[in-house]
Amino acid sequence: YPDVPVILDAKRGDIGSTSAAYATAAFDVCGADAITLQPYLGYDAIAPFIERADRGMFIVCRTSNQGSDEVQGLFAARAPEPTGNVRDPDDPTAPEPLYLQVARLVARDWNHAGNCGLVVGATYPEELGAVRALVGDMPILVPGVGVQGGDLEGVVRLGLDSLHTGLLISLSRSVLYASADHDFAYAARREVMRVAEEVERYRR
Amino acid sequence: YPDVPVILDAKRGDIGSTSAAYATAAFDVCGADAITLQPYLGYDAIAPFIERADRGMFIVCRTSNQGSDEVQGLFAARAPEPTGNVRDPDDPTAPEPLYLQVARLVARDWNHAGNCGLVVGATYPEELGAVRALVGDMPILVPGVGVQGGDLEGVVRLGLDSLHTGLLISLSRSVLYASADHDFAYAARREVMRVAEEVERYRR
Repeated sequence: YPDVPVILDAKRGDIGSTSAAYATAAFDVCGADAITLQPYLGYDAIAPFIERADRGMFIVCRTSNQGSDEVQGLFAARAPEPTGNVRDPDDPTAPEPLYLQVARLVARDWNHAGNCGLVVGATYPEELGAVRALVGDMPILVPGVGVQGGDLEGVVRLGLDSLHTGLLISLSRSVLYASADHDFAYAARREVMRVAEEVERYRR
Repeated sequence: YPDVPVILDAKRGDIGSTSAAYATAAFDVCGADAITLQPYLGYDAIAPFIERADRGMFIVCRTSNQGSDEVQGLFAARAPEPTGNVRDPDDPTAPEPLYLQVARLVARDWNHAGNCGLVVGATYPEELGAVRALVGDMPILVPGVGVQGGDLEGVVRLGLDSLHTGLLISLSRSVLYASADHDFAYAARREVMRVAEEVERYRR
């Protein structure tokens, strides 16, 4: 199925020399078209991936797990103001949740090759909307719709780009484990079709 | 060499169900004694590792790469103050660099089983000192001394714990590639001995 893009959800993030080896492993050994990456080490850790202009990457921004707020929700700013961090809503360097700072970094500084996207979990549709407002038509990979109980209607309502597309809504366990019986292929297909129809309904 | 602890520098970080599989892979399949982990997803992503009380983990705090300041150096606070983020140096929730907030989270909230350490690069000895001041005698894994040009004297001077130990100073490329010739084993040993002697000198 050469027309089906393969995204390796490996969440890699390491210093440059190791990232270069991970990029080779993902793109050349595994043959993936795209990979998910961690933002914590900064741009130079993802540069070896970005240099592969024919491949894509989704940088972890706001994850779908219950405790993701603990670090990603910290209020972060580029530097302390000399007079203290008095928040100015019009100042893009004013403190805002870390995941929005990461979205801003990727959209403004890292995506010069146009091959970056973001990962934003379906369990936080309002925050997906805030990320979408920051990053324009960048593709967003959205896990967490199935077993994790994400809000599909909210995701579609708040996450679509200006062309009414731009979301890669992924289903993992709800499809992989749709049935433990001999009908698993049919059950998996049914689950995909069910969600796809629901997405189309919300798009209209 | 069963007495040599093996630390898998895999920098894993994923939602709970995937982390549980990574923990099995690292500890049971690869037989590692400890692993490095990403903090970005929060506590529940590392819980499956922490539950393995007989194994250890080093959570990436301040990395040795040149661009690590971009995200890790963002000023972060637990929540915005209602009157704006006016910084109070005595307030532990006041904005401080993200890597210090991560060190604080690990030391205060995550390390209930006593099997957590941190990764702090040798290229930032002052910041290693700031982390040490926060986390007490927690072990700190320090990469970046060899090829990356970290400041070994500063690391030892500012990073030791109250027992004058607590640092795992790692050398990777400078030992692995100490020689491309047939004497590589001797050259690798020489490099390790050279750095070990230097560490002992600074400890005195």
